[in-house]
Amino acid sequence: MNHRVQDQPRRDEGFAALADPTRRGILVRLGRGDASISDLAASFTMTLTGMKKHVRILEDAGLVATEKVGRVRTCTLGPRRLEQESAWIDKYREMIEARLDRLGDFLARTKGK
Amino acid sequence: MNHRVQDQPRRDEGFAALADPTRRGILVRLGRGDASISDLAASFTMTLTGMKKHVRILEDAGLVATEKVGRVRTCTLGPRRLEQESAWIDKYREMIEARLDRLGDFLARTKGK
Repeated sequence: MNHRVQDQPRRDEGFAALADPTRRGILVRLGRGDASISDLAASFTMTLTGMKKHVRILEDAGLVATEKVGRVRTCTLGPRRLEQESAWIDKYREMIEARLDRLGDFLARTKGK
Repeated sequence: MNHRVQDQPRRDEGFAALADPTRRGILVRLGRGDASISDLAASFTMTLTGMKKHVRILEDAGLVATEKVGRVRTCTLGPRRLEQESAWIDKYREMIEARLDRLGDFLARTKGK
């Protein structure tokens, strides 16, 4: 399906965006309320340039949206909410559980044989 | 806590390991049963060298364990099961839901004022 092909890069970017503690921190911070790039840079003791790079990565992954009014760029969460990443991990964990269950059944059936 | 400090690099590596469709595919494949590096290379139409790199990244993240018997290196899932990644995403999503609820309450309270 086209759907799947289109979604894949976004999911790759989502996981890559989460592979950094500062970026995970930015998401948690924005979960408490919107913030400007300067606010975020101050909160994480980082240069504006450094913070802009992190925000850009989150923006490319669809996890953060920004809007510039005058000289201030405000960051807000969304439009994505880690739905795909969450769904993938849940599916994977269900699969693992099922495999462990089957292994348990097999061991129970063959016990003492 | 020391616990948290030690876990963080593993979680970074976990998300980074998931940021590639082949590596996610390897995890799903190993969920169905153990496989040798050669099996995996054949399944994903990839060179042995390329597959070894992917497996090493998954191994460093604790998501795959390998054992070499004779000339065959067999890959199995574990010891980690994406518990930390799953927990982080769940916590994040709960936080977002709570924020949206608060916003909903606020809008309901201020309606018509």
